[in-house]
Parts: sequence; structure tokens; C-alpha cells
Amino acid sequence: MVLHFSKCRSVLITGASRGLGLQMVKQLVETTERPEKIIATARNPSAAQELLELSKSHAGIHVVPLDVVSEASIDAASQEVASIVGADGLNCLINNAAINISSDLKTVTRDTMMKTFESNTVAPLFVTKVFLPLLQTAAAKGTGMGVHRAAIINISSILGSVQLNWGEGATFKSYAYRTSKSALNMVTRCLATDLESEGILCMALHPGWVRTDMGGAIAPLSPEESISSVLSVISALTEKHHGEFLDYSGNKLPW
Amino acid sequence: MVLHFSKCRSVLITGASRGLGLQMVKQLVETTERPEKIIATARNPSAAQELLELSKSHAGIHVVPLDVVSEASIDAASQEVASIVGADGLNCLINNAAINISSDLKTVTRDTMMKTFESNTVAPLFVTKVFLPLLQTAAAKGTGMGVHRAAIINISSILGSVQLNWGEGATFKSYAYRTSKSALNMVTRCLATDLESEGILCMALHPGWVRTDMGGAIAPLSPEESISSVLSVISALTEKHHGEFLDYSGNKLPW
Ligand SMILES: NC(=O)c1ccc[n+]([C@@H]2O[C@H](COP(=O)([O-])OP(=O)(O)OC[C@H]3O[C@@H](n4cnc5c(N)ncnc54)[C@H](OP(=O)(O)O)[C@@H]3O)[C@@H](O)[C@H]2O)c1
Ligand SMILES: NC(=O)c1ccc[n+]([C@@H]2O[C@H](COP(=O)([O-])OP(=O)(O)OC[C@H]3O[C@@H](n4cnc5c(N)ncnc54)[C@H](OP(=O)(O)O)[C@@H]3O)[C@@H](O)[C@H]2O)c1
Repeated sequence: MVLHFSKCRSVLITGASRGLGLQMVKQLVETTERPEKIIATARNPSAAQELLELSKSHAGIHVVPLDVVSEASIDAASQEVASIVGADGLNCLINNAAINISSDLKTVTRDTMMKTFESNTVAPLFVTKVFLPLLQTAAAKGTGMGVHRAAIINISSILGSVQLNWGEGATFKSYAYRTSKSALNMVTRCLATDLESEGILCMALHPGWVRTDMGGAIAPLSPEESISSVLSVISALTEKHHGEFLDYSGNKLPW
Repeated sequence: MVLHFSKCRSVLITGASRGLGLQMVKQLVETTERPEKIIATARNPSAAQELLELSKSHAGIHVVPLDVVSEASIDAASQEVASIVGADGLNCLINNAAINISSDLKTVTRDTMMKTFESNTVAPLFVTKVFLPLLQTAAAKGTGMGVHRAAIINISSILGSVQLNWGEGATFKSYAYRTSKSALNMVTRCLATDLESEGILCMALHPGWVRTDMGGAIAPLSPEESISSVLSVISALTEKHHGEFLDYSGNKLPW
């Protein structure tokens, strides 16, 4: 698959210490027409050995500390990223960091509901708000919609689809994770309507069920398989996909 | 419209101090075949003058203190309600209490997001969990699905529809309220799948845009108009509506 990242000069990924976030960094550096600046953020970079090694062996990977639930950390990161991207602004923000604490009807607690909502829903909104000036700078320089200009990709989940949470689709029980992702889909849609006039694309993306710490060992997809499809979908986004909910194959999902 | 509340012996309503919750109590007492026990809860009953007067002039209105965000208050209320309903259990729980703090892209804060989620999403889930034994008692005595047996009605909003938050449907901006209601819709669907085998109906209901403190003076519907339709929809619920999202006219809404 051809990746059209040539005109996307900068990408920022949250939660790049492991799992799908780390895999995005790994595969982005290997694409022939790669973004010049890959800003790989992690809440605790010194514990992200694989990411640190990758950044040593490849040019243009900027490892920036970012705890997405901390206002102070987001502010500090935005200062650092502003100086990395300079007058070009930021072309693509990927809100990938998330948590998944098991929570069926018996085990769900208020605290789990609140913490998960904070990490998976509120954090992407406020990361986006703080990085918005950098996305606006990039958007002001382009036309059309896509990662060549300015885009916000919220990594959601098919488990956030209220419609598909029925019958076989309801097998996986998690009050906290499911509500946080359906709420993230709403945030995505609110942002999409608010940012459309500025030419900033915004959409929600389900990466498939993948063998990461979160997805577990029995998941059908390898991180390589998921992320090559995910990057292909992201690179091909146009105004047609603005405000949509797509899976890793580019298929539209119901809300 | 005929209201089939004759076989529904008990209804519990949260947030009955004013607005739509109070209106439900007012209209339920006036129906000819009314539920014997109308449990009208309010976080501060002594401030709910109209409700208190109503309860003095009509038999079978039980005013019970219930702050839906307080674990201690929910526990105390469930004890009191258990002794009110006795061996019959509770037939119908209406999660109506909610807040709406204005929060567009500029004004939204973390605190508003968290507080709104706590009141509008987490609270209905934990109120339901604590009252579940009473609903199960009622469900064990009936067949079919509906308010004659056991039902959970989550008062949601069309603003919680992710799909309809587009074009004209996106005019009303509120990150906090919209996400909390889309998350409530997910909670509704999770509960519906979890409680189906016990015969407990669970659905989400949009009451229309109504002239209450929340809806404001320019809303098209009076509380009377909204609630007569809402009660008519609730009284006619069957297994066909289990897990659905309906408006006050009984029309299905997209998630
Ligand atoms: N795997 C799947 O099957 C699957 C399916 C659907 C959707 N998704 C979504 O895909 C995304 C990535 O999932 P994954 O499978 O890679 O999960 P994962 O293996 O559990 O990794 C989660 C990542 O998020 C980071 N993170 C969590 N909280 C953070 C915070 N407060 N600040 C900064 N980083 C934080 C973690 O950092 P630390 O290393 O510091 O903990 C880690 O890098 C998530 O949005 C997830 O919901 C995954
Ligand atoms: N009005 C509309 O146009 C509209 C449209 C769509 C959906 N809705 C939904 O309909 C429901 C009722 O709305 P409304 O218009 O009647 O709103 P309202 O006039 O603002 O009344 C809200 C009610 O919720 C109660 N409440 C809030 N937080 C509570 C808590 N922690 N514990 C106990 N009670 C609490 C309030 O009690 P206090 O008096 O103690 O504050 C009050 O009784 C809500 O779920 C709302 O989202 C309304």
C-alpha cells in the first residue's frame, strides 16, 4: 500500500511507549516518504526503552514527555513541540493513549468509570485543545483536507459503537471502556463540526483487535498488520472522511 | 392516550424536585389506573415545595431523599424504598436527574466534563446497580417485558446521538452534556444486554426539547406535552423496545 505521508511534515502520537503507538513510530520511520518530524510522546520516556533506541537509530524522531491526563504535562509538551515544528505547525495529531480496566456489571466501580473517562475521553479533548494553535498554523498553509494539511485522529474502538453493542457484538463486557470510547466518538464529532471551517480534518479510527498488552495474546491481528492498515487509512483521508468513524480497513462503522 | 400503568405497582423517579421529574409525578397521580406507589426522589426534599405539597394532597406519593452522585445517599434511599415496595419489588426506575453546564470548545473545562459525566452517566449506572435487587424481585414475578414487570428508563437526549450531531443537528454546542448522554446511551445498551435474561427491560428516552430550567423558555414543548407523550411511550413498552433509543413520540433515534 502506498502511504501519502510525503506532504505531512509532522506527526504527533500520544502513548508511543508501547503497543500501537510505538508500532506507529516504528512503521512511520520505515515508509519511503515519511514525515520529517515524528513526535513520539510518552508519559515516562525513560521507561520506554524500545522507543529510545529507535530514536537513536533514526533521524527525526523527537521523544517528548507527555502524560495526557496532566494539564501541566500537556502545557510543557506543547511548548516543546511548538519549537520542534516551528512555523510549519503540526500536520497530524494522533490521540492514541488509553487505558482499559476490566469493568463488568459486577466489578465496575465509580472510580474506574471516572478514571477511564478522564484518560480516554477528556484527555484527547484537552490534548487537542492545547495543540490546536499548532494545527491551525499548519491548516492555514494548505487547502483541501487530510494529513498534508491538518488532521486529528482519535484512536477509538469498535467497542465504542453503541449500535454494535448487541447480540454477538456485546460479548466483551466493559462499562468503563465502552462508555469512554462512545464519549470519545461524540468528542470527535463535536470537534469535527467546530473545526471544519478551519480545514482541520477530525475522525475516529478503530485499529482492529490487536495483540498488544491491551488486546491480549488471542487477538487476531499483529501490531504490524493493524498499523500498516491504520497508516494507509490515515494517509488517504480526505474531506469525505471528515467526522467519520472508520475501521483499519477504511470501512465505515456505525456510532 | 391510554396509559397502561395499571399493572405497574411502583415507579421511582430521580430528580423529582422540579422540571420533567416533577411533571412525571404530577401526571402519574392524575392517571386513572395509576401506579399505587410513586416514589419521588429529590436530593433536597425540603427545598422541593411543589413536590411536598403534591405528596400531601395525593395518596401514595413517597418523597425519598436521593442525591444520585452520593453513594451513601443511594444506599440509604434503597433501604427506604425496599421497605416501601416490600415483597412486590420495584417495577419501574426512571433515571431522570441530570445537569447541563454550558461547555463549547472555548469554555469547556476538565472539571465540567468530569462533573457532568458523574451526574449524567455514572450516577444512573450506580443508582440502577443499587436498586437492581428490587427490580429483580419484581421481574421474578412477571412474564414478558414492560412496566408491568420491571423496567429501567434512562432519560437521555437527542443531543447524545453521535450520528445526529452534524449539520443542523450540531447547532447546540456542549462537549460535556453531549458526551455524557452518548455515554449514558452506551450504559443503557450494556445494561440491556446484561439484564435481558432476567426480563428487565432497559431503554433510553429523549423527552423532546421542553420549557424547564434546563430546556429554557424558547423550547417548543411544555412539560405537560412532553410528559404526557413520555408516559404514553413508557406505558406501552414491550420486549420490542428493549435496548432502544426512542423519542417522546415513540420514534427510534440513531445512536
Ligand atoms: N489493542 C487492541 O486490540 C485495541 C482495539 C481497539 C482499540 N484500541 C485502542 O488503540 C489504542 C492503543 O492501544 P494499545 O493496544 O496500544 O494499548 P496498550 O498496549 O495498553 O498501550 C497503551 C498506551 O497508552 C499509554 N498511556 C495510557 N495512559 C496514558 C497517559 N495518561 N499518558 C500518556 N500515555 C498513556 C501507555 O503508556 P505507558 O506505557 O506509560 O503505560 C501505552 O503507551 C488505544 O486507544 C486503545 O483503546 C486497541
Ligand atoms: N428540558 C429539555 O429540553 C430536555 C431535553 C432533552 C433531555 N432532557 C433530560 O430530561 C431530564 C430532566 O431534565 P429537566 O429539563 O427536568 O432539567 P431541570 O429542570 O434542570 O431539572 C433537573 C433535575 O435533576 C435534579 N438533579 C440534578 N443533579 C442531581 C443530583 N445529583 N441528585 C438528585 N437530583 C439531581 C435536579 O434537582 P435539584 O432541584 O436538587 O437541582 C432537578 O430535579 C434530564 O435527564 C435532561 O437531561 C431535558
